[in-house]
Amino acid sequence: MDYSTMCPKYEAAADILGKKWTGRIIRVLLGGPKRFKEIKEQIPEMSDKMLTDRMKELETITIIKRQVYPEMPVRIEYELTGKGRELEPVIESIQKWGEQWM
Amino acid sequence: MDYSTMCPKYEAAADILGKKWTGRIIRVLLGGPKRFKEIKEQIPEMSDKMLTDRMKELETITIIKRQVYPEMPVRIEYELTGKGRELEPVIESIQKWGEQWM
Repeated sequence: MDYSTMCPKYEAAADILGKKWTGRIIRVLLGGPKRFKEIKEQIPEMSDKMLTDRMKELETITIIKRQVYPEMPVRIEYELTGKGRELEPVIESIQKWGEQWM
Repeated sequence: MDYSTMCPKYEAAADILGKKWTGRIIRVLLGGPKRFKEIKEQIPEMSDKMLTDRMKELETITIIKRQVYPEMPVRIEYELTGKGRELEPVIESIQKWGEQWM
């Protein structure tokens, strides 16, 4: 890899992943579709408002999608898109480094 | 990988990498030891103060080390430690995802 010049695509990706909670949310969703409260269960220190905001951002940039199931009561689940699932190598490499060094 | 519970080591690693500029600084240093102004050249929009602060933090957590060469004038270079270099798979996977999706 060429590290002699900065790459705007790297910077854009790093800025997405660098936002507080985003790395945690993506990790949770790699485990499959989840309801709002199931995501919260794994990240209890994050406020509802913060999770709502992040999910909207991640939906806008098409990393996650929101599925509404017309049951009674309505069931809403969040899941990664293909673009989002392809972040798995990033999440795995952070996990691996964390296990070794943290 | 088990995504059913959050991992504190993952969270700690994600918090380090999630700090503004850190991902860019590590990418630059994967290119080898660099002086302060060489790092700045690749990240011109970052202030001197911000770079100074980040370098101190990264030195404290032993991701980078500061080498002082007693020349005239003194030459100071920053380089990744072993712990820091092992972040290369993380940086590479972000780069790869960025190239595909950004």
